[in-house]
Amino acid sequence: MANPTAAMLVIGDEILSGRTRDSNMHFLAGELTRHGIRLMEARVVADDHGAIVASVNALRARYDHVFTSGGIGPTHDDITADAIAAAFGVSISHRADAMALLQAHYDRAGLEFNEARQRMARIPEGASLIDNPVSTAPGFTMGNVHVMAGVPKIFEAMVASVLPKLTGGAPLLSQNLQVQRGEGEIAAEFGKLAAEFPDLSMGSYPFIRNGAHGTNLVIRGTDPARIDAAMSQLVRLFG
Amino acid sequence: MANPTAAMLVIGDEILSGRTRDSNMHFLAGELTRHGIRLMEARVVADDHGAIVASVNALRARYDHVFTSGGIGPTHDDITADAIAAAFGVSISHRADAMALLQAHYDRAGLEFNEARQRMARIPEGASLIDNPVSTAPGFTMGNVHVMAGVPKIFEAMVASVLPKLTGGAPLLSQNLQVQRGEGEIAAEFGKLAAEFPDLSMGSYPFIRNGAHGTNLVIRGTDPARIDAAMSQLVRLFG
Repeated sequence: MANPTAAMLVIGDEILSGRTRDSNMHFLAGELTRHGIRLMEARVVADDHGAIVASVNALRARYDHVFTSGGIGPTHDDITADAIAAAFGVSISHRADAMALLQAHYDRAGLEFNEARQRMARIPEGASLIDNPVSTAPGFTMGNVHVMAGVPKIFEAMVASVLPKLTGGAPLLSQNLQVQRGEGEIAAEFGKLAAEFPDLSMGSYPFIRNGAHGTNLVIRGTDPARIDAAMSQLVRLFG
Repeated sequence: MANPTAAMLVIGDEILSGRTRDSNMHFLAGELTRHGIRLMEARVVADDHGAIVASVNALRARYDHVFTSGGIGPTHDDITADAIAAAFGVSISHRADAMALLQAHYDRAGLEFNEARQRMARIPEGASLIDNPVSTAPGFTMGNVHVMAGVPKIFEAMVASVLPKLTGGAPLLSQNLQVQRGEGEIAAEFGKLAAEFPDLSMGSYPFIRNGAHGTNLVIRGTDPARIDAAMSQLVRLFG
């Protein structure tokens, strides 16, 4: 069976302005790989209704799953839930179960459950809630789109609650050989080896350390025996 | 004058598999902001010809500039130059000036200028070269698309050589107020202030530190006097 595919959509001006460095994409990439879901594409867009709607619709049509981060808080720049509703052409309203969760949370904390906080209970019609063990305000899954918070601690907790519910594929495995040679020196032989193993994906990633050129040679696939076979040949060539 | 717009395209399986954490996007975002160019969107795609061609064509039609990173080395998985040529519908070949640069570089280093290394002189018809002071192999600008290496040290050097040649806009300025309150507490007043300054962009970025909720309130724009005026009101409200 082919592995399910996914895309990520990071929503937030603060990433595009360079103020904040996104960490959610790297986290999700690792989790999906372990779960056997192929992350095929990631996009970062601004807090802009049209940009979010267009990206969500492009990505959800193309991939099995879309994971979004950011824009589901209580402030005026949190517009993701409305954009998702618009992308799916459904209505959005304060949902009773989300209202009850949040009401109980703010009661416990002795804080007012004000209008801004109530905005976080606005959920598109037909979505199911994603648990937020960190700060209660839920994410949601609408069709094949999983809408999660941007704060890394909350994003990571939401991924942990969503992923076990999704059908994964065979785990995506990889092995790495680091060589102290430049890419140009190993390229010809490495390319030939890659052509001999069309079922595997082979990549070379150069680095410069203390002024010396080195390369990480990575072999990826789902069949451990094939990866072992290719790695043995790689070690024989360059090890 | 409105600020020029830009998109970034990060090319590489290693980012999407979670093996490597991209740093070039964050670097470019900061540099563009200082240069007065608005980064509107970023995408990450795999080392896949069709994905690169489609993304380049979508982004170059929509924004003033597109900056790419990755896939211009000597190995079989370096397919960016060919994809750019295909996206523009032009031919690609070993270019004399790039060949001469690389030949001199490998002569100095006492290394063979082999077929794999010669691949790095393949440049789409009509492009201009981008200087690589780190390892010589050039990037290139084709139309409004600036094609650069993925290794951060080289990417950063190429950005430094490209940016001064581009027309920037008024610098994109920002001021930040950090408050030790949750977003839900400041949302109503902050939203009202944002509505009073439609020429500025205001964002709120929650964080959790030692279990306590805080928020960074950020005001962005190009007119320093307007940003000062908004920040004074923000400090009066929450300072």
